[in-house]
Amino acid sequence: MRIIVDGFGGDNAPGEILLGCAQAMDELGVGILLTGDKARLEAAARERGLEEKLARMEVLPCGQVLSMEDEPTSVIKEKADSSMAVGLRALAEGRGDAFASAGNSGAMVVGATTIVKRIRGVKRVTFAPILPKSQGFFMLSDGGANVDCRPEMLVQFGLMGSVYMEKVMGVKKPRVGLCNVGSESHKGDDLRRQAYGLLTECKGLHFTGNVEPRELPYDGCDVAVADGFTGNMLLKMYEGVALALMDQIKGVMTSGLKNKLAAAVLYSDMKQLKKHLDYNEYGGAPIMGAQKPVFKIHGSAKASTVKNALRLTRDYTQSGIIGDIARAVGKKDNL
Amino acid sequence: MRIIVDGFGGDNAPGEILLGCAQAMDELGVGILLTGDKARLEAAARERGLEEKLARMEVLPCGQVLSMEDEPTSVIKEKADSSMAVGLRALAEGRGDAFASAGNSGAMVVGATTIVKRIRGVKRVTFAPILPKSQGFFMLSDGGANVDCRPEMLVQFGLMGSVYMEKVMGVKKPRVGLCNVGSESHKGDDLRRQAYGLLTECKGLHFTGNVEPRELPYDGCDVAVADGFTGNMLLKMYEGVALALMDQIKGVMTSGLKNKLAAAVLYSDMKQLKKHLDYNEYGGAPIMGAQKPVFKIHGSAKASTVKNALRLTRDYTQSGIIGDIARAVGKKDNL
Repeated sequence: MRIIVDGFGGDNAPGEILLGCAQAMDELGVGILLTGDKARLEAAARERGLEEKLARMEVLPCGQVLSMEDEPTSVIKEKADSSMAVGLRALAEGRGDAFASAGNSGAMVVGATTIVKRIRGVKRVTFAPILPKSQGFFMLSDGGANVDCRPEMLVQFGLMGSVYMEKVMGVKKPRVGLCNVGSESHKGDDLRRQAYGLLTECKGLHFTGNVEPRELPYDGCDVAVADGFTGNMLLKMYEGVALALMDQIKGVMTSGLKNKLAAAVLYSDMKQLKKHLDYNEYGGAPIMGAQKPVFKIHGSAKASTVKNALRLTRDYTQSGIIGDIARAVGKKDNL
Repeated sequence: MRIIVDGFGGDNAPGEILLGCAQAMDELGVGILLTGDKARLEAAARERGLEEKLARMEVLPCGQVLSMEDEPTSVIKEKADSSMAVGLRALAEGRGDAFASAGNSGAMVVGATTIVKRIRGVKRVTFAPILPKSQGFFMLSDGGANVDCRPEMLVQFGLMGSVYMEKVMGVKKPRVGLCNVGSESHKGDDLRRQAYGLLTECKGLHFTGNVEPRELPYDGCDVAVADGFTGNMLLKMYEGVALALMDQIKGVMTSGLKNKLAAAVLYSDMKQLKKHLDYNEYGGAPIMGAQKPVFKIHGSAKASTVKNALRLTRDYTQSGIIGDIARAVGKKDNL
């Protein structure tokens, strides 16, 4: 399997991307096709003693970088020669089996839709991050790709998330919940009420009803369905509260010698908890609904997170879920 | 000042409500008018040795209790003789200066709107919980009263929140942020873009632009403006993540003797942190926009939280902000 990786996406490119790719190549047995300015990639390899690793990757040279500040549509316009756009086109042309980038997620959504193209029948691709809950993980679908949604899109977000959680994460009969302000079927706005009806009728997933976000970090469901606006709000609130709380706890544990000594005893257990809570550990989020696997690596990913993300990209690709999604959205009784 | 209190609202009524009222009477110098079944209130008082305290309160007897499962509109229909409905009518009739309840918040919103009635010019009342951030608190307005909103409603939620934070919480020139998926003015859906424009033009508040929920637990703004659906999602996500995380940390701190001993050293500092993070500590949320002060006490409130909430109800009432809100929404250049 060969994964096309955007060499210049994210906060720590190209150095950490390169190192993560090198680790993935050695540990996961995947081939790497790296996009970006060749001279800068070589310089980054020299700096880290990775010349031999880079030599084993193929490089697809290009001149531009698409930044976080660029408009999402720039991927098909003024940044069409960026490391992201070139990688997406290489995927569409079959030069690799999947594409992964830590860059601008809005641009990746546009690129997945317009360059890689959607699976026939898929109304919108979904950006579907995986977040930790008390035991294991849940998927938030859509986490921000589509600000305006119709009810049938929400059903597809649930279908795609369900297939992913089952095939890639190994969750049997994933419980699909609709993010809403209350548990009863009539709760919420028109979009929620209509989506509730459609989800109830959909045969291709196991709908367990409305889920209040309070339940998500516990075990509310395996796939939390939301329109992209609400999903993005939830994702960012989750991140913010978790980070702020961990910061404050760190503050307590490092204030004064007495606390520091006590904290040292708890260190390894707390570190493990932090690791579980750190959404970065998981690596990223699939952008599902495109004809080929596109995976968003966390923007702040360092090498080990890049490697984790590439493992997921590999699993996503091997799982064959693109075929499953095509079948699921194609079935009449699923919508 | 006399506060009308729903004797049968919330998970711990009537016992904890009664005790909280007794404490408020002694410590805050407020008079209490308690609504509910007189015999049951007397029994609760006997159980806790509060007979003398109850004797100093006035009781407004009524037969029904409006539960969490009741429809919000039941407050003006089949539950019109409930402790909540009777309390709201007593407020409207001027038998007290403010009303507080730990009961069904949806019903309180309906009651504030239809029984107490809105301030002239206020389009919708707002349920505005106060949440902890790294330093101090921020207000979320609307936190769930209005599932469907128009842009001008969001401006009023910001105006009312701003007046509250300034007059009751003592925040000078409160920073009003619009909850959105990105910081740039064009981000989000139509509702957000239109609200952004109106908020920019509004002279009566200090609009600081879009705020991503990630920033809220830090110091993103003092008043976070949202439609009630989004606000309720954010509120519940905040609660869920904070509670789940504290649970998990507690798990670490109580696993094994070694951890327990270390945790004992950290105990008082962690307790203080927990207290700051516990939204229950704050007491509740004003329902603003009604002609008289209506205050929602947390549903799970115990006596000390009830007392805290009654202090806020007192401050809200004394602040004179109802007049300020009337003036703010009445100004032409505010909308």
